[in-house]
Amino acid sequence: MANTNIQSLRIDGERLWARLMEMARIGATAQGGCNRQALTDLDRAGRDLFVGWCREARCTVSVDRMGNIFARRAGLDDSLPPVLTGSHLDTQPTGGRFDGVYGVLAGLEVIQTLNDAGLRTRAPLEVAVWTNEEGARFSPAMIGSGVWAGAFDLAYGHGRTDRQGLSIGNELERIGYLGDQPASVRPLAAAFEVHIEQGPILEAEGLTVGVVTGVQGIRWYDLTLTGQPVHAGPTPMTVRRDPFMGLAGILPRLYRLAEEHGPWARVTFGDIRAEPGSRNTVPERLVLAVDLRHPEQAVLDRLDAAFRAIVAEEAERLRLAADIREEWHSPAVAFDADCVAAVQGAVEQLGYSHMPMCSGAGHDSVYLSRVAPTSMIFVPCKGGISHNEAEDAAPADLEAGANVLLHAMLRMAHS
Amino acid sequence: MANTNIQSLRIDGERLWARLMEMARIGATAQGGCNRQALTDLDRAGRDLFVGWCREARCTVSVDRMGNIFARRAGLDDSLPPVLTGSHLDTQPTGGRFDGVYGVLAGLEVIQTLNDAGLRTRAPLEVAVWTNEEGARFSPAMIGSGVWAGAFDLAYGHGRTDRQGLSIGNELERIGYLGDQPASVRPLAAAFEVHIEQGPILEAEGLTVGVVTGVQGIRWYDLTLTGQPVHAGPTPMTVRRDPFMGLAGILPRLYRLAEEHGPWARVTFGDIRAEPGSRNTVPERLVLAVDLRHPEQAVLDRLDAAFRAIVAEEAERLRLAADIREEWHSPAVAFDADCVAAVQGAVEQLGYSHMPMCSGAGHDSVYLSRVAPTSMIFVPCKGGISHNEAEDAAPADLEAGANVLLHAMLRMAHS
Repeated sequence: MANTNIQSLRIDGERLWARLMEMARIGATAQGGCNRQALTDLDRAGRDLFVGWCREARCTVSVDRMGNIFARRAGLDDSLPPVLTGSHLDTQPTGGRFDGVYGVLAGLEVIQTLNDAGLRTRAPLEVAVWTNEEGARFSPAMIGSGVWAGAFDLAYGHGRTDRQGLSIGNELERIGYLGDQPASVRPLAAAFEVHIEQGPILEAEGLTVGVVTGVQGIRWYDLTLTGQPVHAGPTPMTVRRDPFMGLAGILPRLYRLAEEHGPWARVTFGDIRAEPGSRNTVPERLVLAVDLRHPEQAVLDRLDAAFRAIVAEEAERLRLAADIREEWHSPAVAFDADCVAAVQGAVEQLGYSHMPMCSGAGHDSVYLSRVAPTSMIFVPCKGGISHNEAEDAAPADLEAGANVLLHAMLRMAHS
Repeated sequence: MANTNIQSLRIDGERLWARLMEMARIGATAQGGCNRQALTDLDRAGRDLFVGWCREARCTVSVDRMGNIFARRAGLDDSLPPVLTGSHLDTQPTGGRFDGVYGVLAGLEVIQTLNDAGLRTRAPLEVAVWTNEEGARFSPAMIGSGVWAGAFDLAYGHGRTDRQGLSIGNELERIGYLGDQPASVRPLAAAFEVHIEQGPILEAEGLTVGVVTGVQGIRWYDLTLTGQPVHAGPTPMTVRRDPFMGLAGILPRLYRLAEEHGPWARVTFGDIRAEPGSRNTVPERLVLAVDLRHPEQAVLDRLDAAFRAIVAEEAERLRLAADIREEWHSPAVAFDADCVAAVQGAVEQLGYSHMPMCSGAGHDSVYLSRVAPTSMIFVPCKGGISHNEAEDAAPADLEAGANVLLHAMLRMAHS
């Protein structure tokens, strides 16, 4: 390949957009979003559509025991470790059209662009679809890449169940994506993932590309507050052991904690339930999903300690029992310097405005970074909104991010 | 009937206790409580057991279109309006063995005691079982007595649905308790209801009987806070529109409001749900069940206004949409002076320690008091605990309350 040829390569933004919109029809919601949760019939339909496109692009498609899909384009030296890119096709229950699917289809577009130009890379290229990135149907999130990278074993991955008690293993088999390849790490030359930012910073700064240098650490908890279920009317307020009084004490202190560690600390309560949940009975129990994040592991650990102390103090003050179960811990990540440099080089070569940044969301790249040189590329999304049917992104920005991905991959594929 | 005969009459406390325990086996929970929700198969079994006992006691049993059961013992002058007592057999999902069922079985015990003594009253006596008092399965509570007393029309009563969408009308038919009598008011000489206090006051004062002079007013609301569902990681805390931040603002202010109107004001949050309820997404919406109570209607109305103002202020401050839907309003009630005097006279005649008090809970007697002379009798329950599997009461107190009921009814039946 001549350098001039390579440097002038650009992906086809219109084809990328058309495919994003075609995929978005699978699980489309009334308000313009997507509900294509992991291992549902709709997820199968999305996977089938992607695999069809990959076969049209003459890729070799394989599926592993966790349902992760790998579409491979052979290299001039096919014995070299591949340069991989990938993301996920599953969505939140009221999710958007770009989260995950953009990274998958941008990867396919890289291959298609090389096909159209009739160019081969030295190393093979692969596009991966990771199973259950969202964690909305099955907890924890990123279980497909997590098993592949060795963070969880296969039996754990297969055994995770949704609220109906259906397991990942059985659901993979049901939709025909329980593949035969081992769900375990192979040597990679590099791994990239392009994604919408899912935050408002690039848009607010008026920039096109985020060169992602790392990912926030994340801790997920189930906080259970247990009191005494008594009748709402006759029981004086002063003698109650009311889990909602615990919430009234804990919530403001946790939001203040986030403020004190701003602007990067994040405290989110995504779900809650009351038991027994009867209108005229003080609940015996509240179960609250708590999500703490910070880009520096030491600060995240301080947040963890402060969270536990606040809960213990308020529970004691209000005569409640408190239980904190840590559901998941994803330590803060610093991405590979060579991969970050490849993205930085590509974005400078292409002339897009850009800034370095840290991801606030977990991504499959977090697990990949444990076993391979990895980094990410962000593009703006409208209003920073994601995990929402209103999620939106400009075609020109999506095209720019895919071009950066193309040239970062070419740099690592020794083209 | 000679006065001496009448004044020495006492109910059989052991039989009352034995029947309470037999009824408690229907829907018995592992922790010693009862789950016999309205119009379930278990409720049918409880009703069948009661009806069987009534027939053994030679009562005439009729059922109305709302499934309310009336067991009647003829009077010497059967054209006189009856003296009625009653309560309910349905329970909370994790309810106790005495709430409601005690009042029903104490009424049956009154009839049995007169049978055993071979005594007739001038006016007929009736024991009523009111449908769906708890409001746990179908909202609102006290729907059976409410329709009977004309607070709701029959179509409304039949149309109320549970969470599975099953209606009261269809469920009544299914369990065989869609009766043929009109569910509408008939003249009553008086209506009494004996009940466990469901609060800690009698126990704390060391007294046996509460002479209930009225019932707290109750307002039930669904409060919906709507924000913007965004990804938990990348979205800075300062730009979020997070319904949980609304909760963090509102809960402490509402508990403070109750404190400022203490000791009789009650603020209870019985249930909550988050939508979409995904661990790593700020919820779009929280729906919270709010229950406000106070024995004085004017104070309850002030609490209502303050509640609305607090919600509006916090919602505006946090850029949330707030919707308050009033689900139910039961105004504060003052009971009939003659009925209260009959209870007071009975308790003095029997020599039990006692105090006047106000009910903090809603009861079927609230609706009955709108259409007939009505009052209630309370006995202590252990720790004031009710709507709880640990609900408990002393056999001697239950016997005392039934004796007060017996003699209050005799006074009003012109015996």
